[in-house]
Amino acid sequence: SNSSRYSSSLVVSIRRCPPGEQSPWCSERWRMHSSLETCMYSGRSGTKPDELIAAAHASCFSMALAYQLSGAGHPPDEISTEAVLDMQKSDTGWSITGSHLNVKAKVPGVSQEQFMDPARKGKEGSPVSRLLNAKIRMEAQPA
Amino acid sequence: SNSSRYSSSLVVSIRRCPPGEQSPWCSERWRMHSSLETCMYSGRSGTKPDELIAAAHASCFSMALAYQLSGAGHPPDEISTEAVLDMQKSDTGWSITGSHLNVKAKVPGVSQEQFMDPARKGKEGSPVSRLLNAKIRMEAQPA
Repeated sequence: SNSSRYSSSLVVSIRRCPPGEQSPWCSERWRMHSSLETCMYSGRSGTKPDELIAAAHASCFSMALAYQLSGAGHPPDEISTEAVLDMQKSDTGWSITGSHLNVKAKVPGVSQEQFMDPARKGKEGSPVSRLLNAKIRMEAQPA
Repeated sequence: SNSSRYSSSLVVSIRRCPPGEQSPWCSERWRMHSSLETCMYSGRSGTKPDELIAAAHASCFSMALAYQLSGAGHPPDEISTEAVLDMQKSDTGWSITGSHLNVKAKVPGVSQEQFMDPARKGKEGSPVSRLLNAKIRMEAQPA
């Protein structure tokens, strides 16, 4: 076969800001932490394009999920999303063929059923999900 | 109208590594510098998803252009790419509708004509260009 694959992943988590504290990110009520930051601060110079795409997808989805859960009356305390990208090499070069979202969320008092509809809406509706020419999958569960 | 727009941009530049020095990025011969790094190190916590997409596109395109120019016998000394994303808000929420690459390259002895074919191939072939459901434009010129 002339194709090869690898995965690249990055975890982004968002947490509710303590009352009265400003979020530094996106003027939302959630604060983003990412392993990208850890990378950057650890002195590694530069980040690969696929890591940046994974970071964009994980963070965008997390914000979309927080928005959907809040709209459904179940505001989350914490969401942690890992985006794992599938990359495949063929005659035309490397392609990013898929993004797999692994989602964990702390949502007070929510049932699995109440959780899954906002999760699916977040997956379908996130601007980055809609941007990507790639198969998007999701595994999600409330903690 | 119920739509609004804004642009988000990020400059990524790559330079040839001095002879004998290892590149910290992607085991290529070029070293990446990005305003994303500046953002992260300046103590701003978190980066917006669209900034990450712009960084991914600018860096991926820059590497693709360096590869194409080298293959055509015109290895670049420096490439600087700004990716400006178009975002549009409608009833379905924010969408990233376009990415505009503004490219400047230092390429010893290359003519405008010799430069444009590798530039177009870099734009069409870059894995991130192929990934994005968005209109991709490019303005490019050798310095």
